[in-house]
Amino acid sequence: MKAARILRQFQALKPQIKTQTFPGPLSQAISKDIAQYQEDRSHQFVADYSKSSGNYIVDADGNTLLDAFAQVTHPQVGTHKSLDRSSIAIGYNNPALIELAKSDEFVTAAINRPALGNFPPSNWKQILEDGLLKKTPKGLEQLFTAMCGSCANESAYKAAFMAFRDRHHGTGFSEEELKSCMQNAAPGSPEYSILSFESAFHGRLFGSLSTTRSKAIHKIGVPAFDWPQVPWPSVKYPLEDHHEHNKAAEAASLDHVRHTIREHKHKKPIAALVVEPIQSEGGDNHASTGFFKGLREITKEEGVFMIVDEVQTGFGATGSFWAHDKWELETPPDMVTFSKKAQAAGFYHNLELRPSLPYRNFNTWMGDPIRALQAREMIQFIDKHKLVQQTSDIGDYIYETLKALSADSLIENTRGYKQGTFISFDMPTPAQRDLVVSKMRQRGVNIGGCGERAVRLRPMLIFGKEEADILLDTLKSVIKSI
Amino acid sequence: MKAARILRQFQALKPQIKTQTFPGPLSQAISKDIAQYQEDRSHQFVADYSKSSGNYIVDADGNTLLDAFAQVTHPQVGTHKSLDRSSIAIGYNNPALIELAKSDEFVTAAINRPALGNFPPSNWKQILEDGLLKKTPKGLEQLFTAMCGSCANESAYKAAFMAFRDRHHGTGFSEEELKSCMQNAAPGSPEYSILSFESAFHGRLFGSLSTTRSKAIHKIGVPAFDWPQVPWPSVKYPLEDHHEHNKAAEAASLDHVRHTIREHKHKKPIAALVVEPIQSEGGDNHASTGFFKGLREITKEEGVFMIVDEVQTGFGATGSFWAHDKWELETPPDMVTFSKKAQAAGFYHNLELRPSLPYRNFNTWMGDPIRALQAREMIQFIDKHKLVQQTSDIGDYIYETLKALSADSLIENTRGYKQGTFISFDMPTPAQRDLVVSKMRQRGVNIGGCGERAVRLRPMLIFGKEEADILLDTLKSVIKSI
Repeated sequence: MKAARILRQFQALKPQIKTQTFPGPLSQAISKDIAQYQEDRSHQFVADYSKSSGNYIVDADGNTLLDAFAQVTHPQVGTHKSLDRSSIAIGYNNPALIELAKSDEFVTAAINRPALGNFPPSNWKQILEDGLLKKTPKGLEQLFTAMCGSCANESAYKAAFMAFRDRHHGTGFSEEELKSCMQNAAPGSPEYSILSFESAFHGRLFGSLSTTRSKAIHKIGVPAFDWPQVPWPSVKYPLEDHHEHNKAAEAASLDHVRHTIREHKHKKPIAALVVEPIQSEGGDNHASTGFFKGLREITKEEGVFMIVDEVQTGFGATGSFWAHDKWELETPPDMVTFSKKAQAAGFYHNLELRPSLPYRNFNTWMGDPIRALQAREMIQFIDKHKLVQQTSDIGDYIYETLKALSADSLIENTRGYKQGTFISFDMPTPAQRDLVVSKMRQRGVNIGGCGERAVRLRPMLIFGKEEADILLDTLKSVIKSI
Repeated sequence: MKAARILRQFQALKPQIKTQTFPGPLSQAISKDIAQYQEDRSHQFVADYSKSSGNYIVDADGNTLLDAFAQVTHPQVGTHKSLDRSSIAIGYNNPALIELAKSDEFVTAAINRPALGNFPPSNWKQILEDGLLKKTPKGLEQLFTAMCGSCANESAYKAAFMAFRDRHHGTGFSEEELKSCMQNAAPGSPEYSILSFESAFHGRLFGSLSTTRSKAIHKIGVPAFDWPQVPWPSVKYPLEDHHEHNKAAEAASLDHVRHTIREHKHKKPIAALVVEPIQSEGGDNHASTGFFKGLREITKEEGVFMIVDEVQTGFGATGSFWAHDKWELETPPDMVTFSKKAQAAGFYHNLELRPSLPYRNFNTWMGDPIRALQAREMIQFIDKHKLVQQTSDIGDYIYETLKALSADSLIENTRGYKQGTFISFDMPTPAQRDLVVSKMRQRGVNIGGCGERAVRLRPMLIFGKEEADILLDTLKSVIKSI
């Protein structure tokens, strides 16, 4: 836990709430101003990014919060609407990123944004090889770059549909297909589907939203594809203390998956299964390695592509660079999607998922070189400072402390065993959970809620022992006060 | 046409092809290298953006091309696959943008990318007011920011569906809706649709692709919503020379629109109509002002939202800042979407399109502050140098020259009368068109094809008289040689 050396790179800050209410008056006034043009009711507080540093975020009123929930889009306490999308990886105003941003390489890429699929810059391959391709998941040497998490998932779905079609019908197109697709009708626009899990979150555009099953607020009023879902295994927490129950629950869920795939085979075939290693938006739902091994076996046997959605879990936060690394699958998944902390977005895939023709899976920008440059810099910073290992160690420390606490406190269902700092726990009631979150924030520690009554942590990769102790000490005292 | 003063800001370049083949050997080798990881068959050539300047793009081999097709994602000659998405507005390596990119404001925004909907930066409103909000289309004071053109359109569709539902059912949700939407079923996931035109292009994600009707290659093998389409009016070109025929053709199309909306009212209601001011990807299809006035009347009368997709036409290229400004509608459209040249993306809208609850139309990043900063800078540059007026003047000059040429050359169907530099024309055969494009490129002028046999121009807003003359002189000599 050699965090101190890394953190010396940042301006030293500590939690400090200066205003009587939080968010403070200036934050509230600015929000109200923005409301003239844009939705403001989702604002948590207004930030001053120029003053934020490392693990600390400073708001418009000059309050300083230890940010254990880094740019997660999360609920207004009490609304139960929570979105896990931690998107800052290596600290606010990281000097390595400042230096990158000031380089000619970055400036050129920022102001001459290319159509990457048509006029790639001459250094494109090098940018990828020095960055994103250093973290190629095993067996997935191909990389499709995109703009955001929803786009990454939808482009992966498109790749799955195209490859699934070609697998069954060859690479040539019939006249009927060519004609009917222009009418949005089968066989050209086939009645294929993507199978997802209950409580899943995979995005908010029309295809990804059809696989999102977490909350009605995201879906209500929006047309959706009639695609199937299967239940997430009803495991008990802490996961590691309920092996037998969980094994049975996972077996039941796997049966359900196989049954659903077979049932659809002849009417509305399932082209791919998409799964998050940890269902985050849905309430931090975990499962064991054996469950994911089972999913890979079933999808392989049934001829269904397996997409692992690491938009939220990727880039080290679970204590391995990709959360699915820990599954040690014999056959890798077919695609792994990423975004958020990576700044860049897209999916890694095997060669079968590269379409038969150019322009089939395509768009104007095909990603963004400056985000690929940032990903490169972050990967190098993460490796240099061994931040994945640190996150694993700090995660264990926090987890064990919370689990020990749960014996004689209100803390229940501790989740995130050996999952880095991807940690959460339940409070007995939603109201108590809300109280924890708001009291923590009033003491200068930014954490969040999720699901019905869960508190969750999503610190950055530079979160060290010192920050963990501030977090845990504040939490202990807050919980005692409830 | 005071382009000289503007262009003195850039490094002086001129068309120069040094390699025997085009693309040159280095460009080809780099493409082949990239092919190890990514699709390369869509590459046109590999660019060296650090050496490109103003209207000129330099490739990896040191060839210099006058770029009258600025980062349009366009066809490999001969494939008839063409995508119009000119995404560079005010020149490669524009000094104003270099200065912006090196500013602390830009660096802070680039490396501390916020979840804008939750933790907006304190200067967010100012960024918008100094930039994107200066160009608010009449009557549309609200601004939803997004990541790309497809996301902008899909977020607009979602806003339309939500508002359409609320219009008919109020803002409360029934238990049945809340439950059924989690199953992707009606009434919670309603059977609403978006009406689009034949040959339209609105994007490539699942919702936007369902409204795209331009080419089978974009759609084949991908599931689509069963949404209706109507024919684009079968007008004759030059538009201004066929008033009578065109008026009848447009009336027929308008009848079709009204009939389709009414026909669907009770089974699969149409929530919105989406239309491009000029169908670009579909082959540069135009219509008269009267046609768009008619669309506004019909949509208003029938209670259907009208979305104007200015992803391609916005930001001055048609000789007005928004192409739909020229329609002078009494009632503005309900939404105007933008991206591409704007670098930023999103849609302007009226207040009815802001959802009843926060988080209904939402995503993690809600756009990107650095792209909003670039949009601000470009808008100020465009205004300072009166580039919209210049584009209008240069467009007229090019258009009149081409139209005069068409009298005794192979040029047919000149299109783009009073539409700035959004100009195209047909060659008698696809093969001749391909020859024009490739011969032009071999002489150092980058233009593109579209549709079956059209040549199209998409220069930047800094394209002046000098560049227009190089373009026209080269074109005359190339066409004479065919």
